[in-house]
Amino acid sequence: MPVVVQNIERADSALIARLGAAGVATVHEAQGRTGLMSAKMRPIQQDMAIAGSAVTISAAPGDNWMIHVAIEQLRDGDIMVLAPTAPCDMGYFGDLLATSAMARGCRALVIDAGVRDTRDLRAMGFGVWSTAVSAQGTVKETLGSVNVPIVCAGAHVNAGDVIVADDDGVCVVPRADAAAVMEAAQTRIDAEEAKRQRLAAGELGLDIYDMRPRLAEKGLKYV
Amino acid sequence: MPVVVQNIERADSALIARLGAAGVATVHEAQGRTGLMSAKMRPIQQDMAIAGSAVTISAAPGDNWMIHVAIEQLRDGDIMVLAPTAPCDMGYFGDLLATSAMARGCRALVIDAGVRDTRDLRAMGFGVWSTAVSAQGTVKETLGSVNVPIVCAGAHVNAGDVIVADDDGVCVVPRADAAAVMEAAQTRIDAEEAKRQRLAAGELGLDIYDMRPRLAEKGLKYV
Amino acid sequence: MPVVVQNIERADSALIARLGAAGVATVHEAQGRTGLMSAKMRPIQQDMAIAGSAVTISAAPGDNWMIHVAIEQLRDGDIMVLAPTAPCDMGYFGDLLATSAMARGCRALVIDAGVRDTRDLRAMGFGVWSTAVSAQGTVKETLGSVNVPIVCAGAHVNAGDVIVADDDGVCVVPRADAAAVMEAAQTRIDAEEAKRQRLAAGELGLDIYDMRPRLAEKGLKYV
Amino acid sequence: MPVVVQNIERADSALIARLGAAGVATVHEAQGRTGLMSAKMRPIQQDMAIAGSAVTISAAPGDNWMIHVAIEQLRDGDIMVLAPTAPCDMGYFGDLLATSAMARGCRALVIDAGVRDTRDLRAMGFGVWSTAVSAQGTVKETLGSVNVPIVCAGAHVNAGDVIVADDDGVCVVPRADAAAVMEAAQTRIDAEEAKRQRLAAGELGLDIYDMRPRLAEKGLKYV
Amino acid sequence: MPVVVQNIERADSALIARLGAAGVATVHEAQGRTGLMSAKMRPIQQDMAIAGSAVTISAAPGDNWMIHVAIEQLRDGDIMVLAPTAPCDMGYFGDLLATSAMARGCRALVIDAGVRDTRDLRAMGFGVWSTAVSAQGTVKETLGSVNVPIVCAGAHVNAGDVIVADDDGVCVVPRADAAAVMEAAQTRIDAEEAKRQRLAAGELGLDIYDMRPRLAEKGLKYV
Amino acid sequence: MPVVVQNIERADSALIARLGAAGVATVHEAQGRTGLMSAKMRPIQQDMAIAGSAVTISAAPGDNWMIHVAIEQLRDGDIMVLAPTAPCDMGYFGDLLATSAMARGCRALVIDAGVRDTRDLRAMGFGVWSTAVSAQGTVKETLGSVNVPIVCAGAHVNAGDVIVADDDGVCVVPRADAAAVMEAAQTRIDAEEAKRQRLAAGELGLDIYDMRPRLAEKGLKYV
Repeated sequence: MPVVVQNIERADSALIARLGAAGVATVHEAQGRTGLMSAKMRPIQQDMAIAGSAVTISAAPGDNWMIHVAIEQLRDGDIMVLAPTAPCDMGYFGDLLATSAMARGCRALVIDAGVRDTRDLRAMGFGVWSTAVSAQGTVKETLGSVNVPIVCAGAHVNAGDVIVADDDGVCVVPRADAAAVMEAAQTRIDAEEAKRQRLAAGELGLDIYDMRPRLAEKGLKYV
Repeated sequence: MPVVVQNIERADSALIARLGAAGVATVHEAQGRTGLMSAKMRPIQQDMAIAGSAVTISAAPGDNWMIHVAIEQLRDGDIMVLAPTAPCDMGYFGDLLATSAMARGCRALVIDAGVRDTRDLRAMGFGVWSTAVSAQGTVKETLGSVNVPIVCAGAHVNAGDVIVADDDGVCVVPRADAAAVMEAAQTRIDAEEAKRQRLAAGELGLDIYDMRPRLAEKGLKYV
Repeated sequence: MPVVVQNIERADSALIARLGAAGVATVHEAQGRTGLMSAKMRPIQQDMAIAGSAVTISAAPGDNWMIHVAIEQLRDGDIMVLAPTAPCDMGYFGDLLATSAMARGCRALVIDAGVRDTRDLRAMGFGVWSTAVSAQGTVKETLGSVNVPIVCAGAHVNAGDVIVADDDGVCVVPRADAAAVMEAAQTRIDAEEAKRQRLAAGELGLDIYDMRPRLAEKGLKYV
Repeated sequence: MPVVVQNIERADSALIARLGAAGVATVHEAQGRTGLMSAKMRPIQQDMAIAGSAVTISAAPGDNWMIHVAIEQLRDGDIMVLAPTAPCDMGYFGDLLATSAMARGCRALVIDAGVRDTRDLRAMGFGVWSTAVSAQGTVKETLGSVNVPIVCAGAHVNAGDVIVADDDGVCVVPRADAAAVMEAAQTRIDAEEAKRQRLAAGELGLDIYDMRPRLAEKGLKYV
Repeated sequence: MPVVVQNIERADSALIARLGAAGVATVHEAQGRTGLMSAKMRPIQQDMAIAGSAVTISAAPGDNWMIHVAIEQLRDGDIMVLAPTAPCDMGYFGDLLATSAMARGCRALVIDAGVRDTRDLRAMGFGVWSTAVSAQGTVKETLGSVNVPIVCAGAHVNAGDVIVADDDGVCVVPRADAAAVMEAAQTRIDAEEAKRQRLAAGELGLDIYDMRPRLAEKGLKYV
Repeated sequence: MPVVVQNIERADSALIARLGAAGVATVHEAQGRTGLMSAKMRPIQQDMAIAGSAVTISAAPGDNWMIHVAIEQLRDGDIMVLAPTAPCDMGYFGDLLATSAMARGCRALVIDAGVRDTRDLRAMGFGVWSTAVSAQGTVKETLGSVNVPIVCAGAHVNAGDVIVADDDGVCVVPRADAAAVMEAAQTRIDAEEAKRQRLAAGELGLDIYDMRPRLAEKGLKYV
């Protein structure tokens, strides 16, 4: 049944910002290597790293009607996440929709389909991660749903989950886990900083992580 | 039969320039969502938007001989459009051919195959939309044709058609339709500008386009 | 049998530098159109052109343990070349490993799999050519080998071979052939420079290469 | 956390059998066009149509350890559904595992990865739907989970859901919806039978479905 | 403009039958290696070889309305050829539509998209060449056209062209060329029969085609 | 340099036959999970399992001239293995070439490119593993080599290596290793037979392989 869920819960905005700064690779590790979208999900811009709350959209293939419906549900700091109900690389989204979404405080779009007006979108500073770029237009004929659970590029997303996106891809953090994941991420970041300095100084991971005995035990030969 | 059609008709150059400024997404919509090449056709540079008259090349797979033949047919403002007669990702085109093409006034290449010397091509300002990047060299053994109708990345192209290309991809406008398409594109551009301002001010597409009654009629529920 | 070959021979560093300056397309041509990796091998950065000596890594799919082992074998000017033993797009390599590799004088990574922390890698100036970008983490459970012959993205690579990489892709030059290939490349570069000037002046390839008689003989018709 | 959920609920076996007989296309339509796995999920055999209860497996890429764990959880009529935590086309499953699974009453495997021994599997009558065929062996090093929710080939699957599979692909029916979906499917089947007879007799869909007025209204022209 | 062209010309039925018997590879060669659809166009059945007159369908992505319209235009011996206006792998066609098409004398469908009910279609003896198999349902909302020129899987098709299809793929013969192509095909078939007997007797192509002098001249060495 | 190596060594024919009977998955495991071609290499027939000695062919893309040259080098029990020097899905091989190859005792073709006349090839009983099926014709213009080392579908192949092929794909066994690999394969086959009987009787792999303690140690929880 096509439905729009109007009131969704979101994670704390400061927490979301910290997850965005931690980045996709760190957050993905911190939550046990779960939640990563597939590698076909690529940014249209370089060097943007953000996080936000998911407003989910389940849309018919080649039909962008529900994006208009979803925009009304956006709040400051949200990221729209759209999954078509069948594979589709058409251009669901362009500069006019981005103008509207930005007016509602939306920061970015994550879409398992195509976008267009990519030059304008970059110029506007609106972040896009998509699985295609295509000028092909869509129709407005079939209902979908907003803020229902979806599968986007292989990842399960609930409305209000934290979406972390950067040049490496997109990772989904369940809202209820966000604080714990950030804590684990911070631990990881702190540990990495110490290791980075030792590695930069020329120490080897073989020694820092004490790998030599296990390598020998498994039978690695040096010749 | 391998043939070179020498005298082709081109659209008016001012009209071509306007189509280039309108951009792929707008032109594609303005001509009834036809003429778009497939999403696998990607630029090797960012933020270039152009239009020109098609000089078409039908070439054997892995054979770039006909590009030399085509270059003689180029006039100022032309775009070469090459389709191999079987799928091929080899590097048909590099900086020497671009030097020659630019000396004839050619602005860009659209090719359903590979190119090489991409760094040089970007530095030269020669635009390329291709389906592959590959250093793999080609031979000069088999004849093809120049300025015959071709199918390039799923789109039918006749010599002299207007090619519009930007970051979103490539769209083909039949020469005879160019003026009418531009008129429709201008209407669209004018209408979009007004909408953009309303959307930027926070009005919703749901209201601007009066979508609420039809959504309700189709059964969309808000919860 | 998992093995690390410790002492490999490398080509002369000045020769390597010249091959890097010649670039992938020229080197590939100069060695008889061999040694090119497949077009799916793409740089994560733009406008970097380098060459170096291959330190090869054969790794289990989703297992980056051997990169730590390989880093100990690196010398100034080396390039790591990793091939998984089964197709894999996971993120084997990120900023910490790059920090370690750079501390050993390594310039770049060529990997038939994924990398992560791509923004950091670009900022560090560490060159990467990969077949995927993915934050997906790997394990350290299964041994592989270092400096054994591998097949990477369709090309056969021996430790110490010269790897040439730029925006067009990656080409492998057998160490023993490096001097002869560079000689052939230089001949080609010199010849191309003369042709470039003639082409820039408007002369046609049809005339420079005397193609017209053979085109006519094969039956090309001008209409 | 790696976990095995031991007691899962299953749908009624007669109901499952009816869903299998209805087939993927009909069931998919009957539940509102949801639950379909992607078109890359293909059978290794022809003309097999089945249904069963999902025993889900979340496994590390290239690691089939959890299949052994899952087999202990199988009951008569179950279908194993495996999703790797990163894309992987290695051969997780062959004739020995099939022998073990069949001894527990399992009918089939649905796997977003590869299988091997395909000739034997067909000869044994064990049904397989997979996204790859590959002899590449896997390891047993990393834990995963059994009977947790997974995303397999783009579809969300809970343990105990009804899996319907035939030559068209695989569809997932949530356990709680199975009876309602079958009722809708039966209605659809009955209606289709009547239409099939009229169509076979030469009546047109244009007339049976009364499409002509709406086509005319939308502007279709006959010339 | 959406349009249905009602009266199309077809080639002679005996000629069509002969082209079907000649097969795709021979016909493709006989017409100068043109007209072949891309290798992604695959049969859902094995060992069927046919030919028929094209009734072309240009349809919106995910919308099969125009198939109903096209069926009314079918005559005995026709083959429907459908190209969506944007890439789409949804299931446009199943057993009910096949029942209707067969009642009109249609033999097969060639579609650059998906089909469903594939087991039933094989059982009915209705031939299908498609680029996907998918149970995903389509809508009936957007008009398209029937018997207009289309580009299907990279080949240009006009209504009434002869479609030749077998296990190798699909080839399009322009209606006006059909007789000449068949004549060339027959010449080829006759020549091949003689060669087949000599080759089966152990004679080498090197000798039959007198290849040795040219190989030597090009520089082939035997060691 | 284009070259034909005329006298190659082959493994013992009885040994080759045993490797063929062992099958791809077993042989691949027996030689340490090496030598497997990529999963894109698929048979055009079902239920054929063979082995033979590799006669290798390095051919230009879209050029099948060297197949004629290679056929002269064939002996009873050989398998031709062709790799193009750039990716190509054209139809290099059809029924005439198969007739000639069979007259020389050749059993099969393994090709990282396309084949045609697939129905005839199946009817003739000539085995084909390819990465494409395509009627697209090739030329005879550019020399290649026969019986030189090649990389085919990601695997390194030397002339005289044993090629094992069945429904799971293709595996390459270095000639010098063939006896040792078969010995390891036999050990594996014998061990599997015992396990198969226990598994068929309902014993679990968890118990046969004593997996429970290690699963518990790694932290698997049953709930």
